[in-house]
Amino acid sequence: MSKVIENSSCFYCEKGMELENLMIEAAKLQVSTLYVNKDQTHKGRCIVAFNRHVKELFQLDEKELHLFFEDVSKVAKLLNDVFRPGKLNYGIYGDLVSHLHMHLVPKYEKSSEWGEAFINSPTPKHFLSDMDYEEIVRMMQAGLQD
Amino acid sequence: MSKVIENSSCFYCEKGMELENLMIEAAKLQVSTLYVNKDQTHKGRCIVAFNRHVKELFQLDEKELHLFFEDVSKVAKLLNDVFRPGKLNYGIYGDLVSHLHMHLVPKYEKSSEWGEAFINSPTPKHFLSDMDYEEIVRMMQAGLQD
Repeated sequence: MSKVIENSSCFYCEKGMELENLMIEAAKLQVSTLYVNKDQTHKGRCIVAFNRHVKELFQLDEKELHLFFEDVSKVAKLLNDVFRPGKLNYGIYGDLVSHLHMHLVPKYEKSSEWGEAFINSPTPKHFLSDMDYEEIVRMMQAGLQD
Repeated sequence: MSKVIENSSCFYCEKGMELENLMIEAAKLQVSTLYVNKDQTHKGRCIVAFNRHVKELFQLDEKELHLFFEDVSKVAKLLNDVFRPGKLNYGIYGDLVSHLHMHLVPKYEKSSEWGEAFINSPTPKHFLSDMDYEEIVRMMQAGLQD
């Protein structure tokens, strides 16, 4: 049976190469999926994407809203414990890729963009080796078990 | 009796001139306060600030987390109904002003920064007349009554 894609023009729904070029799935959460962002300008940067194609927060029902931010909060705690940033930044943009997803970006004192909003699409991007991505995925998965 | 300030180095706690130079209180929500941002580069831009001095989302207990995002979602719906943006953007940064607050930024197609993350501190800023701010505050307060 072929896979049903909720919104075939959305790479979060399609889950194909476009998504895989940008991020790596790390875990399924209650109502969302955790992805490690391939650009690691800020170590530990990741994405929590809601599992259904929804554009705006207020389109979630109350239960979904609660569970989505429980997922986000759990990942925020995990990032804080694993990477020890000075502060976490959080962003939902999606003017063009409007599937509800939140960027979670650990910020480090004396490091780039400290004291400012993180740059969403930095140039150049900071890519890692496959082994280093696997290590981050493992650290996140282990943190979620605690 | 003098006012008790939870964190005297935080302008969200102090509620003095530093805050008033940046934003205008529009409404008290369940666990947060809605402020209209004085920079209106994106019409309707506002801030939802948690009422207690907390740095990170995961420091909220489950009930506070639920209520905070109910407040955010209610304001998002209001902004969508009143200003009819193409998309809403949402950001929590606060590396330096770490009191939990979320920026809600309506974005408009064919207008500035469409398709990118909003610029948090634009130069120059777009200020309005007192009458225009009052009109926005009134529109938001009316929207919250609906």
